[in-house]
Amino acid sequence: MIRHVVLLTLRSDAPGEAAENIVRALRALPEQIPSIREYQAGVDLGVNPGNATVAATSVFDDRAGYLEYRDHPAHRAVIKEYIDPYREGRAAIQFEI
Amino acid sequence: MIRHVVLLTLRSDAPGEAAENIVRALRALPEQIPSIREYQAGVDLGVNPGNATVAATSVFDDRAGYLEYRDHPAHRAVIKEYIDPYREGRAAIQFEI
Repeated sequence: MIRHVVLLTLRSDAPGEAAENIVRALRALPEQIPSIREYQAGVDLGVNPGNATVAATSVFDDRAGYLEYRDHPAHRAVIKEYIDPYREGRAAIQFEI
Repeated sequence: MIRHVVLLTLRSDAPGEAAENIVRALRALPEQIPSIREYQAGVDLGVNPGNATVAATSVFDDRAGYLEYRDHPAHRAVIKEYIDPYREGRAAIQFEI
């Protein structure tokens, strides 16, 4: 199986609700994208300085399942509407579990 | 519960085995740090350009459990010996699950 992780850092001028809006929109994706096996998203708890703002991590059976998610219109719509306007940084990975 | 994620990007002059050595060292931590509930680490699969090199993600009951991991001598030793010499970039987050 494959775990996918994205860490987003939002711009300092992003509205206070931007991070929560991203998380809420991401959490609606599993019911729209059948290849998702597990899905977790959340806002940084503030334990450490310098952290990213928002995380999303998901699990898929294989690379095809991940690509279905990556390119799914519902996912692209969340990126375009909720993430792109406020994104300062992004780090991502897909690895075998 | 809390999920912790770290994404590392290694320097381009890091030896080829550096990423696998990091993953192997990280995967030995759950047997040394009692507060770890789940642990996964892996090397980027190469599906997307611009990805990080190595990921580690772990789950803890609470903030205290995460801090036990963060500050544990076995964890600090892995960072010092296997990660710091080759680290170019790092993104991290802790979020509630």
